[in-house]
Amino acid sequence: MTQNLLRPYNFSAGPAAMPVEVLQQAAADMLDWHGSGMGVMEMSHRSKAFMSICEAAERDLRDLLAVPANFRILFMQGGGLAENAIVPMNLSRGGSLDVVITGSWSQKSAKEARKYASVHIAASNEADHHTTLPDPASWQLSGGAQYVHLCSNETIHGVEFHALPNLKALGCDAPMVIDFSSHVASRLVDWSRVGLAFGGAQKNLGPAGLTLVVVREDLLGHALAVCPSAFNYQTVADNASMYNTPPTYAIYMAGLIFHWLKRQTEGDVTGVAAMERRNTAKAALLYDFIDGSQLYLSKVAKNCRSRMNIPFFLRDESRNDAFLTGAQTVGLLQLKGHKSVGGMRASIYNAMPMSGVQALVSYMRDFEATQA
Amino acid sequence: MTQNLLRPYNFSAGPAAMPVEVLQQAAADMLDWHGSGMGVMEMSHRSKAFMSICEAAERDLRDLLAVPANFRILFMQGGGLAENAIVPMNLSRGGSLDVVITGSWSQKSAKEARKYASVHIAASNEADHHTTLPDPASWQLSGGAQYVHLCSNETIHGVEFHALPNLKALGCDAPMVIDFSSHVASRLVDWSRVGLAFGGAQKNLGPAGLTLVVVREDLLGHALAVCPSAFNYQTVADNASMYNTPPTYAIYMAGLIFHWLKRQTEGDVTGVAAMERRNTAKAALLYDFIDGSQLYLSKVAKNCRSRMNIPFFLRDESRNDAFLTGAQTVGLLQLKGHKSVGGMRASIYNAMPMSGVQALVSYMRDFEATQA
Repeated sequence: MTQNLLRPYNFSAGPAAMPVEVLQQAAADMLDWHGSGMGVMEMSHRSKAFMSICEAAERDLRDLLAVPANFRILFMQGGGLAENAIVPMNLSRGGSLDVVITGSWSQKSAKEARKYASVHIAASNEADHHTTLPDPASWQLSGGAQYVHLCSNETIHGVEFHALPNLKALGCDAPMVIDFSSHVASRLVDWSRVGLAFGGAQKNLGPAGLTLVVVREDLLGHALAVCPSAFNYQTVADNASMYNTPPTYAIYMAGLIFHWLKRQTEGDVTGVAAMERRNTAKAALLYDFIDGSQLYLSKVAKNCRSRMNIPFFLRDESRNDAFLTGAQTVGLLQLKGHKSVGGMRASIYNAMPMSGVQALVSYMRDFEATQA
Repeated sequence: MTQNLLRPYNFSAGPAAMPVEVLQQAAADMLDWHGSGMGVMEMSHRSKAFMSICEAAERDLRDLLAVPANFRILFMQGGGLAENAIVPMNLSRGGSLDVVITGSWSQKSAKEARKYASVHIAASNEADHHTTLPDPASWQLSGGAQYVHLCSNETIHGVEFHALPNLKALGCDAPMVIDFSSHVASRLVDWSRVGLAFGGAQKNLGPAGLTLVVVREDLLGHALAVCPSAFNYQTVADNASMYNTPPTYAIYMAGLIFHWLKRQTEGDVTGVAAMERRNTAKAALLYDFIDGSQLYLSKVAKNCRSRMNIPFFLRDESRNDAFLTGAQTVGLLQLKGHKSVGGMRASIYNAMPMSGVQALVSYMRDFEATQA
């Protein structure tokens, strides 16, 4: 990626930075997409032009994430918070489900699911203030659950499952549902361990307003009677995500992101494998610097530190405002931590180049030096 | 509005044509909004920059539509089809509602509402193939309904209530819910007759993926237990449309449309009043031409012809393909009628200038001349 040197680095947790080339392409297409005489926003979702955009986006995503043929890709609306209701409406069959609590997002999922099903908390890291991950071997799975829910990367607390748990190996046959909103496409997914994955697009896939659902076909068709038709996975799948008018421009932008992802290389790998290698290196650079510093602190256990969302603290919190103001001055934006955690948070999604993390570390080092 | 003469006229029913100046502004802002160093898509929805965009959009919309202070403006997701479930989940209280059937959209609303409430059909134009509107004086209102639903402009069948019915004058105290998706902001609204209005943005307000809800405050707070939190009007209102991440870019685009609307003038009026005058003149030009021709036919009764969506037919339907191909050649796009109705449909929303309707009439006249 060619970073415009005059452009600041944006560490927002989402909506988040997008690749410069993608934004440039979107600007160039705004009034006339491929000689159609229309911008993408102006096209009927049933037009050949838009259908080709949507089909290409789905195909490219399936390719990038190596989604097996027995999974359906759905483009929906409402984000992760809406899915917290939509998943149990579609999958719980009015029975029970297990939830693994690892931070704010899985807590919200558990709370919302209680409207539709009996919820059993199989494990929780609450006693550790969501800075660890409960070992799957210790999970108290309930046996009769329709599914097991976990958030594979907690955006706010910055904990990540670096490998997806293997429920079968734990003696559990229920499908696993993952909320992968904040690390989708940052690494490859082992679909043999997943029944359904959902995520808002606004971190790694595109603009806010688009929600991705990847669901195994055998889980379709069991929605509760109260599930709105527009959020019934079977209905959405049967209509190729066009039961209601889809968020067409957001799908187009996601398609541009997918094209960009396919072009990325690191050494001998491309696409999401390249992103995984790059993201691992980016996160290591920042965590290693934090661990080696006297001023900065990461509170997350080393075995589950998120490669996407890196909360950190100044040991002298009276310097927080000075840190943020100085960062802004040198073009490092949106570093303030989530209000529920405090401190700082650097979200370094796919669109954040290594040069951005280097610039952040360089600033952090300079700032620490001035505090001596 | 300055129409780029090289740009085709786009008659799509939605997503639909947008003003050229709005698209140009969006392209110019794509990488850097107002010197923030970020495009709008890249901003946290909690950032000061985006909050200012969202607040301005809401304020401008309230101003343009003269929304009274006791109504809340909600920016939601899912479109009209999702609202067909969300409205009864919020307003029906598990009781009953009355629906006036005037075309495809009100039929869909009635069907979906049956999941949540007892639905009484108060009137229907089905016997007339949805080409008339049942006189409100003939409606069989049920008395105990929690609300009365109607679609104030049927996008597919092209019938429009030119004045909103006055339920109180009919002896009915229930609030009226209107689906105004396809004519919102094309004319002023008499809010004294409305309890709730909803509409997808993708016709007159902005891109697909944004849904507008305007709701009287006393109707909040009665959602069914099964209503997802993200679609509970009270929750959405309490969080200023930011309970879940809103479709930020779509809200920004809608805000640009609102600015554009405020700049429009016709004679001595501005804003939506100007649009109403212009839209009335545009529709009259097209309907008068159709009525005076030997080839073209409007099947809709004259007292309820939509000013936004104008279905018309060639008396010789074997010429349909030739008509559409010729239209495309002279830069008149997306004129094919909805599959359930057939023939042609010209959607002439706010962004369609009078010159576009003139170009269409000119082409239709020339095409008719070649058929002699």
